[in-house]
Amino acid sequence: MKVDGRARRTIWREAGAQAVQVIDQRELPHRWRVQVLGTLEHACTAIAQMWVRGAPLIGVTAAYGMALQCVADASDEALGHARVLLDSTRPTAVNLAWATRRMHEALLPMAPAQRATAAWALADAMAEEDVAVNAAIGEHGLVVLRDRAAARRHDGAALQILTHCNAGWLAAVDWGTALAPIYRAHEAGLAVHVWVDETRPRNQGASLTAWELAQAGVPHTVIADNTGGHLMQRGQVDVVIVGADRVSARGDVCNKVGTYLKALAARDNDVPFYAAVPCSTLDLGIDDGVAGIPIEARSPREVTHISGRDAHGSIVEVQLTPDGSPALNVGFDVTPARLVSGLITERGVVSPSDVHLLGRMVSPQRPSR
Amino acid sequence: MKVDGRARRTIWREAGAQAVQVIDQRELPHRWRVQVLGTLEHACTAIAQMWVRGAPLIGVTAAYGMALQCVADASDEALGHARVLLDSTRPTAVNLAWATRRMHEALLPMAPAQRATAAWALADAMAEEDVAVNAAIGEHGLVVLRDRAAARRHDGAALQILTHCNAGWLAAVDWGTALAPIYRAHEAGLAVHVWVDETRPRNQGASLTAWELAQAGVPHTVIADNTGGHLMQRGQVDVVIVGADRVSARGDVCNKVGTYLKALAARDNDVPFYAAVPCSTLDLGIDDGVAGIPIEARSPREVTHISGRDAHGSIVEVQLTPDGSPALNVGFDVTPARLVSGLITERGVVSPSDVHLLGRMVSPQRPSR
Repeated sequence: MKVDGRARRTIWREAGAQAVQVIDQRELPHRWRVQVLGTLEHACTAIAQMWVRGAPLIGVTAAYGMALQCVADASDEALGHARVLLDSTRPTAVNLAWATRRMHEALLPMAPAQRATAAWALADAMAEEDVAVNAAIGEHGLVVLRDRAAARRHDGAALQILTHCNAGWLAAVDWGTALAPIYRAHEAGLAVHVWVDETRPRNQGASLTAWELAQAGVPHTVIADNTGGHLMQRGQVDVVIVGADRVSARGDVCNKVGTYLKALAARDNDVPFYAAVPCSTLDLGIDDGVAGIPIEARSPREVTHISGRDAHGSIVEVQLTPDGSPALNVGFDVTPARLVSGLITERGVVSPSDVHLLGRMVSPQRPSR
Repeated sequence: MKVDGRARRTIWREAGAQAVQVIDQRELPHRWRVQVLGTLEHACTAIAQMWVRGAPLIGVTAAYGMALQCVADASDEALGHARVLLDSTRPTAVNLAWATRRMHEALLPMAPAQRATAAWALADAMAEEDVAVNAAIGEHGLVVLRDRAAARRHDGAALQILTHCNAGWLAAVDWGTALAPIYRAHEAGLAVHVWVDETRPRNQGASLTAWELAQAGVPHTVIADNTGGHLMQRGQVDVVIVGADRVSARGDVCNKVGTYLKALAARDNDVPFYAAVPCSTLDLGIDDGVAGIPIEARSPREVTHISGRDAHGSIVEVQLTPDGSPALNVGFDVTPARLVSGLITERGVVSPSDVHLLGRMVSPQRPSR
């Protein structure tokens, strides 16, 4: 996607370089910064401290992390160590473990001397695959949006879409998952307007989704996370589309905390609720997502404090709560399959009840992307 | 309630004074400030700019605003003008119009020269009534909490209560509505723990409810508004109690935006959902609250910007969103009666389906408080 008119990806490698560059997303939308990741440790820090975030981008960054390790030490032991380190940076997204396993299993049969070159090539390929997968999600999602527009709008008014968190191109290598259909619709001339949940505590909606949509010229409005239910009651939302960090075999959708509340409101108001997910997000190893998917607990400071741009243009962190009031920061929740209208994947739109079939088709041990 | 050990109310009048004092709630929990309201205009500003907020406190402040007008000009015309001005400061809370009507109807039959003295006396009485009403809500709510604790907790663990926004003593003259039962339970030795929704965009939960509970020594944890559904799924919430700004004849509950989402999650997880409300909050003039209750739109700046305390102890406002991304700020939503387990009033706990009976009992034209 374009930033100030220039085509960008979230992660890239200069031809022949032994390092990758990423957009540092921590100070967006206020400050544009690029970071160079030159070691495994850099890659781990970038994921754990959320310079990069979003399930697809985490996966690709982890793949490059394995390649960076191969440059420093391509032994079996070093690779195994790198995989464990990377897998521990974020516990919820299944793409992370999927990406490191894929790299690990591809590299282990090779002689150590060959591994670095192969690792770079495979990580590059995984980045390209991510772009292709998300482009395909955009195409399948466009059909969903067109159908919904035809069913709902006879007056030419914009299709009203609500999204939570950031599942845009900043969460992937390009295009994004939940926002890919929206970008495709906008390009195709289908009038859309996006309600952007600010998505506390890290505010990825207010900071990243709003910024992405503004850069692309897509009409949007930022709302507090509390607002979506009211809008749905008033008929001001035609469809909800979110991303996901993990989808269980029975179709339960784990995504940014608060997604479940929006899914409940969508069901209560007959608004279709979709998750846009690459097949690498499917986890056939877990059936009951509510009970089985591990939920990341993050620092309470993300709740008690918040950062923004002050009147002088500086990024400032301020405290919101009284001294001594504790806070809990739960990163994700699980939306039961019964509340999910469909999953928009690179292979088409499937019902949650068919996730296990799709998952088996793309091979549970090594998803096809 | 006590602040740093000293008994306080949110609004008070020194004996014989022709002015009232209020706690300025805008910079809590970071800064303690008292404001003197000496004119009708001061009272209007205090309500509109939310130096004071919360349905019961707004009503009492408006009553004092009518008294302040009587000091300046007690003519019929001036009183009518004052009532219109005060009613327009906040559109959603029904207590506001109830309080100004009550003052207006009591004062009009009197000679203008008598009105100021009578107005002060009546406004003082309404403040005392508010304290008594909320104390009674606390007693009735304590029974609800005790019953719930008996049903849920056999292991002595604290009763887990979730609340949204601030319906504590800062929202009333004293005690509060939703928090009154919690304060009574804490005093009575019933172990409780409160999940405090931060309540974006104005964060009255993170700033005011957390501060109140900390001052009273009630165990609590601040959470992002997105978190409650997840906690309920995991069995970590035993009961939800919120306040309300207006309750329709059929029992629909209008409260701070986001309440409806928590009510949906409560129903989905078999968690009882209560609103604690004085009878002055009942509005028999509206049956369908979702369609009929006017919802206040506030400044988008409350969404795009937030204030907090920086590292130097200064209150700083920071921008959260990209330049040029619009925001919508809806103040309230309506929870349909079907999601409400009961209403805790000063007259006891009633089913939403009995609101119209209770409302008629306390006289719809002039509620009894």
